[in-house]
Amino acid sequence: MSRILNFYPGPSALPLEALESIRDELLEWRETGMSVMEISHRSKEYDAMHNETKDLLAEIFGVPSNYQVLMLQGGATLQFAMIPMNLLNDKESADYVVTGRFSKNAYETAKVIRRVNLACSTEENGKFFRIPAHKEINISSGSIYCHLTSNNTIFGTQWKTFPDTGAATIACDMSSDILSRKIDVKSFGLIYAGAQKNLGAAGVTVVIIRDDLIERSQKNIPDILSYRVHSAKNSLYNTPPCFGIFIMNKVLKWVKGQGGLRFIEKQNEGKAGLVYSLIDKNPEFFKTRVDKGSRSFMNVTFNLPTEELESRLITEAKEAGIVGLKGHRSVGGIRISMYNAHGIDDIKVLVQFMEEFLHKNG
Amino acid sequence: MSRILNFYPGPSALPLEALESIRDELLEWRETGMSVMEISHRSKEYDAMHNETKDLLAEIFGVPSNYQVLMLQGGATLQFAMIPMNLLNDKESADYVVTGRFSKNAYETAKVIRRVNLACSTEENGKFFRIPAHKEINISSGSIYCHLTSNNTIFGTQWKTFPDTGAATIACDMSSDILSRKIDVKSFGLIYAGAQKNLGAAGVTVVIIRDDLIERSQKNIPDILSYRVHSAKNSLYNTPPCFGIFIMNKVLKWVKGQGGLRFIEKQNEGKAGLVYSLIDKNPEFFKTRVDKGSRSFMNVTFNLPTEELESRLITEAKEAGIVGLKGHRSVGGIRISMYNAHGIDDIKVLVQFMEEFLHKNG
Repeated sequence: MSRILNFYPGPSALPLEALESIRDELLEWRETGMSVMEISHRSKEYDAMHNETKDLLAEIFGVPSNYQVLMLQGGATLQFAMIPMNLLNDKESADYVVTGRFSKNAYETAKVIRRVNLACSTEENGKFFRIPAHKEINISSGSIYCHLTSNNTIFGTQWKTFPDTGAATIACDMSSDILSRKIDVKSFGLIYAGAQKNLGAAGVTVVIIRDDLIERSQKNIPDILSYRVHSAKNSLYNTPPCFGIFIMNKVLKWVKGQGGLRFIEKQNEGKAGLVYSLIDKNPEFFKTRVDKGSRSFMNVTFNLPTEELESRLITEAKEAGIVGLKGHRSVGGIRISMYNAHGIDDIKVLVQFMEEFLHKNG
Repeated sequence: MSRILNFYPGPSALPLEALESIRDELLEWRETGMSVMEISHRSKEYDAMHNETKDLLAEIFGVPSNYQVLMLQGGATLQFAMIPMNLLNDKESADYVVTGRFSKNAYETAKVIRRVNLACSTEENGKFFRIPAHKEINISSGSIYCHLTSNNTIFGTQWKTFPDTGAATIACDMSSDILSRKIDVKSFGLIYAGAQKNLGAAGVTVVIIRDDLIERSQKNIPDILSYRVHSAKNSLYNTPPCFGIFIMNKVLKWVKGQGGLRFIEKQNEGKAGLVYSLIDKNPEFFKTRVDKGSRSFMNVTFNLPTEELESRLITEAKEAGIVGLKGHRSVGGIRISMYNAHGIDDIKVLVQFMEEFLHKNG
């Protein structure tokens, strides 16, 4: 069979051009006579690729020179632990804004490690369908950082502007929307993201951290969990996930080749516009519970009038070569995850399918 | 250029057959219409591959049913921290046998976290050229586990038999010789290994752990660092390193296809025999400092009469299509790392090159 339209929430579709390049170099990488997954991470060839990847990300994302880009393992979930372990001593505290399942996990994990406060939660009956207004956030006195999740994959909400959190710098999980739009990196103290949506494949976690926060790294923690150590060793303290970094290298080159974030952001706006426009024209059929000002450009969630129709849509989509539309088990319904790799034409195919489904069943 | 002979210490050579299969399926995996790195880790297709990989490892390695196989991130280095965090409470202690750089790191990391004792060290002037006799190991009273490193990559030493450590179960880092020989898994409480030598590519860490040790997992640690949580969630607590697990799947199928550990062990004995036999016949030229009974079958280290000859050997090897022979910077000299992917013919080519070099320069 041939490649199909993949709307999985992550791991998720990657640019075909990047995949083809990975395939073509799989047995013989550059002039090394071996696969990039076989070469020593201490070789000059690997080192050049490692640094090229880091520099590409910094260039595309606009990372200022007083920030370091780390490429680690463990997923965003390990960052839930590393952030409080590194940035707080046992007398300090931080704030957490809870807007979804993963931001709640980040908060619960931090509670095990250090003193943290709930600055705001938009949970209602176990669900989260909105991003709070900035004035709803209560930063506590002396707070070192405020943790946010920029895009909530499960519920389909996304911060459109980021709050002023005063002396508490923002630590932000951007796993599901990093590189999807232009961001003013200097408004954040720390940004982190698992690679498996917009950056590459699962197994690499990017951490972009300001120099003064690296200096905060606590001394009584294992080296493998210390930002100071990873930064001092340029993410080569232990063997890095070399092949995952190589995949990211190929994806970043594709992003740059497309025209960088200027192009990507515009395309993502266009894609989201097509889907939300169909939903807004047919609100009784595509029933979304997400607050209009909180709508994610990455993940669109909605229900159909009956669960039976939802199952039928998923089945017929699959027959039409479209997969990954099933909503998260905690919410049900339909979810469309459209990351950077999807071009506008992919979304046109999907929207046309949805329109036809509506006409047959609406 | 074409593929060359790669003796890097890790990441290191992988079986060509596995690499070809990975390449052939890179854009379209099985009947999914996408790359395995693009599919949801919650899909039934991924789940089947995930479990197949775990089961293959258990089958080939002979893992008893009261052990769990976990596939995690963070490298063996993260296990240096997770083992004491999980297995010891703040009143308990463990023993460490230090036979090289990495076992020393494991010990130093554990010291940051819990009470640990040095049961034995073979360090002499900052170097480690032997494995201790069993009677040199002093297990302390009440010790929960004794940590060993089965093969020391940098110095080229390897445990040939494992000690009886009494009530302290053995926790063993097998990163550089797992699956290289038959092991009685039930003599260990916990075995762990980074994948980048005999299992696949960097970015996956295998942990084989006995059920009663999973039950020891401390409750006051973050879920992402808990064996109990990873075991209960079948290594799917967070997004696993899916593509790395896929690479391991291909390597394990190759091992099984070769005839499993019975064949692999015999081949590794044959390969080591060829190299050590040349060394033993010419001890004034190939000068090894490694104790004879401690010789590693995976990593052979030696010096030549002068540093100038060592540089020349490395240069001429490269011209002959042989790379990765430079010794670790802390030891210098020459190191041959020959993991499972090397067939006996690869070693014959290397040994012939070494013989010719000896005749020209000896």
